[in-house]
Amino acid sequence: MTKQHPLIVRALNNEVLERPPIWFMRQAGRYLPEYRAIRGDHTFLTMCHNPELAAEVTLQPLRRYPFDAGIVFSDILLPLESMGADLTYVPGTGPVIRNPVRTSADVGALKDFDPVRDLPSPMETIRLCKAETDVPILGFAGAPFTMACYLIEGQGSRNWPETKRMMFGQPQLFQTLLDRIADAVGDHLQAQIDAGAVGVQLFDTWAGVLSPEDFRRWALPASRRALSRVSGAPRLFFTKDSAPFLPWLKEVGADAYALDWRVDIGEARQVLGDVPVQGNLDPQALHAPEDEIRRRVRRIIESAGPKGHVFNLGHGITPDIDPEAVAAAVDEVHNWSWN
Amino acid sequence: MTKQHPLIVRALNNEVLERPPIWFMRQAGRYLPEYRAIRGDHTFLTMCHNPELAAEVTLQPLRRYPFDAGIVFSDILLPLESMGADLTYVPGTGPVIRNPVRTSADVGALKDFDPVRDLPSPMETIRLCKAETDVPILGFAGAPFTMACYLIEGQGSRNWPETKRMMFGQPQLFQTLLDRIADAVGDHLQAQIDAGAVGVQLFDTWAGVLSPEDFRRWALPASRRALSRVSGAPRLFFTKDSAPFLPWLKEVGADAYALDWRVDIGEARQVLGDVPVQGNLDPQALHAPEDEIRRRVRRIIESAGPKGHVFNLGHGITPDIDPEAVAAAVDEVHNWSWN
Repeated sequence: MTKQHPLIVRALNNEVLERPPIWFMRQAGRYLPEYRAIRGDHTFLTMCHNPELAAEVTLQPLRRYPFDAGIVFSDILLPLESMGADLTYVPGTGPVIRNPVRTSADVGALKDFDPVRDLPSPMETIRLCKAETDVPILGFAGAPFTMACYLIEGQGSRNWPETKRMMFGQPQLFQTLLDRIADAVGDHLQAQIDAGAVGVQLFDTWAGVLSPEDFRRWALPASRRALSRVSGAPRLFFTKDSAPFLPWLKEVGADAYALDWRVDIGEARQVLGDVPVQGNLDPQALHAPEDEIRRRVRRIIESAGPKGHVFNLGHGITPDIDPEAVAAAVDEVHNWSWN
Repeated sequence: MTKQHPLIVRALNNEVLERPPIWFMRQAGRYLPEYRAIRGDHTFLTMCHNPELAAEVTLQPLRRYPFDAGIVFSDILLPLESMGADLTYVPGTGPVIRNPVRTSADVGALKDFDPVRDLPSPMETIRLCKAETDVPILGFAGAPFTMACYLIEGQGSRNWPETKRMMFGQPQLFQTLLDRIADAVGDHLQAQIDAGAVGVQLFDTWAGVLSPEDFRRWALPASRRALSRVSGAPRLFFTKDSAPFLPWLKEVGADAYALDWRVDIGEARQVLGDVPVQGNLDPQALHAPEDEIRRRVRRIIESAGPKGHVFNLGHGITPDIDPEAVAAAVDEVHNWSWN
């Protein structure tokens, strides 16, 4: 008798299910007191690079809630560090790269990235988690455009002016940089699958700052290039602003699309076509009273329909969320039945 | 012989024109050295409340560029100050309201707003500008949802958690607050028209943080309520994230819609129907080389077509833009001819 695939894999294979599987972006995070207890003793980067600590915080939400998947605790910017970025996390600012990439010489100086050689910790974290739990573990990486934003700007930005200056003013150099990053993150996703990840998600957090013309010229083909290097497990693609890009999103070539909360998930499916989707509760709706949280969860499941839907937030959970709100959302999904 | 309406009015009346009129959001701003020279001697709020200073900076971009409209120098939050908000501008943070509105008592304590009595400076600024220039002057206000965001949160926010907490948890109170603000900003727009503004724009900068369901329930009817109090000149509605809301945008009841740069303006018109539009160059595209700026300007005009189009940015110009880039964009629009 073959063992049945886990619910999350079945949803990502576009199967009709009795209820959607559920996990939350950034579920291993600061809203959990047990996470803050560990984080208090270690820097964020130390935790990312230490598989024992990373596995512990990956498992924390799985002990507290019946999530249908875990996601490896790591950070999208780690491959950039391996490629030569001098990365730190500054309280109140977030990630800072002290040697931002602005010139042809800067791009040329980036090192090649071999995930197994240069960044073994996420894969080791996945192995440690798998030894502890039967809950499937997802891997992830940052999409090339989003990674380029941080690498060029040197830190988070509202408008990403340096990134756009290079994109508009040095398009060939920008393309070279995207290609380098695409290959690196593609290999990084593949290595996580090889280490046992049941699926992977590519996060294009900042693609939504682009016009449709620029999304199609830059971000979309770069993510397609990254995902084309990956096989053996379902590949999800997430962008924080999906509404403008829905008509072309499938050109990314992912197996499933994670949608933010600014689209109705059922209407988005009409545009996307017959492909699995993930999402899409407003993370801030977890501030609502429990009845309203449960109503919104049901509404999303109804809108998405029984086929190929993974329940999730439309963006990462924020540190100010009450863990009880998460319990209510997870419970409501588990109580659902299409039959 | 009747004098012909100014180009901006003709565009907002949905006429077919030989070229679109052009103005830029935040064109009276820090990218201009002559603005910074005045700003260096006065606080932002002082400048807003002093019609002579406000008129001077309103006129500055009109002296430098052949813009087809000016926009009164003011700030969307001023009516909240009149209603009792203790408003300051903190360098690096932006607007801060030290007595944020969170409870029923807070909402009840808000004062009624009579623009002529409580906030005469924008209207006086419009009158002073009209005495100095024949270039038509636009008025503006913040949309109720965006104003409520600042009033509840107390300052700018990425996720607006307190706003959403009230919206989800105290929907009746939130509705009362939106209604109060809608009436105030509607009256404020009307007063600016009465003072000689050739048109007005309602800015719903933060409506894009809402799901489609919440936009339609909260932000949209509140802006409709505000605009329903306004007549006598064209009324523009702007939201920084228009793509998710295009199918319902016309329910706002404005005379024209200002679009951000994350939509193709021609494709947006297909959804919106036969209504004037404004936009929609990526403000950061002003960092591009001059040839690329000019190419993008032409592409937007071509996409929008000859009927009812006002050229603008898709959001406010940022302080880091080279004034020469603005000159190139304005020049390219003026060189356009549909004939």
